[in-house]
Amino acid sequence: MILGRLNHVGVATPSIDDSIAFYRDVMGATAIGEPFDLPAQGVRVCFVDTPPSTGSGRGTQIELIEPLGDASPIRGFIEKSPAGGQHHVCYEVPDIHAAKAWFEAKGVRVLGEPRIGAHGTPIFFLHPRGTGGVLTEIMEAPGDGH
Amino acid sequence: MILGRLNHVGVATPSIDDSIAFYRDVMGATAIGEPFDLPAQGVRVCFVDTPPSTGSGRGTQIELIEPLGDASPIRGFIEKSPAGGQHHVCYEVPDIHAAKAWFEAKGVRVLGEPRIGAHGTPIFFLHPRGTGGVLTEIMEAPGDGH
Repeated sequence: MILGRLNHVGVATPSIDDSIAFYRDVMGATAIGEPFDLPAQGVRVCFVDTPPSTGSGRGTQIELIEPLGDASPIRGFIEKSPAGGQHHVCYEVPDIHAAKAWFEAKGVRVLGEPRIGAHGTPIFFLHPRGTGGVLTEIMEAPGDGH
Repeated sequence: MILGRLNHVGVATPSIDDSIAFYRDVMGATAIGEPFDLPAQGVRVCFVDTPPSTGSGRGTQIELIEPLGDASPIRGFIEKSPAGGQHHVCYEVPDIHAAKAWFEAKGVRVLGEPRIGAHGTPIFFLHPRGTGGVLTEIMEAPGDGH
C-alpha cells in the first residue's frame, strides 16, 4: 500500500459553535463548512479548510467533532479533556476493502467494518495500539476530492 | 490574519527508528527524511511526507519527534503516553512577528519568543488553553515551501 493523502485532522470540541468562532476569528480560516449531525457515528461534524500548497490543490482539513448523544464515542474524550483536543488523523485510500485486508495482514487492529463517514465514503479506524498511539481513520477517497 | 497551510502534524514517539519502520512498512510512506537532532528544542526529528492533492503540490507532513536529553519538553508526554501519539499541529504564516502580535492581541498565550524550528525558520507555540486544547505551532513559511 502507498500512503494516501492526509485528508483531515480530527479535533474534538465541546462546542462546534465556539470552535467555528475560534477558527474564523483567531486562526483566520476563510472556508468553513456547515455543521451537520452524523448520528451513526455519534458526532456533530464541521470541516474547516486549510489552504493547499498550490492554487488548484486541496489542503488537509480540520474536522471538528462534537459529541452527539449520550453514547457518543468521543464523550469520554471530552470528559477527560474538557477543552477538546487532537482526536485522530485520516488518510485517503483508493479501495477501503483492500486497505482493511492490508492492515489486518500487518497485524494492525481494524475497529469494526467499513461504514459511511463524514465525507460520504466508507471509512474505518485503526486501533491506536497498532499505530504508535495515533487513532487513525482510513477513508476511501471520494471522486470529487474531499 | 488568514489561516496558513497546515505544514505538519507533530507525532511524539519513544523511538523514531520504530516509527520510520511503521510509516514505511505499514502506512506505505515513500518519502521519509533523515532523522536529525534539534538540541535547542530537546527533540530528535524526522519528517514523513504525505502526498499532495496535485502532483506539483506539497502534502502536510508528519513530524516524528522523539525526546532528546533529560530536559526534553516531550519527555512528560511520552511518560504519560508511552506508545506516543499526536502532539501538535503546525500552520505556516508569512511573518512570524506579525503572527505573534496577532495572537497576543487575540489573547492567546504565545509560549516564548520566536526561535528556529525544525524547518530552519522561526517558530513559536500557542498554549493549548487558547486553542481548543490543540498545542499549535506557528512557523514562518520557508522560501522553498517545506
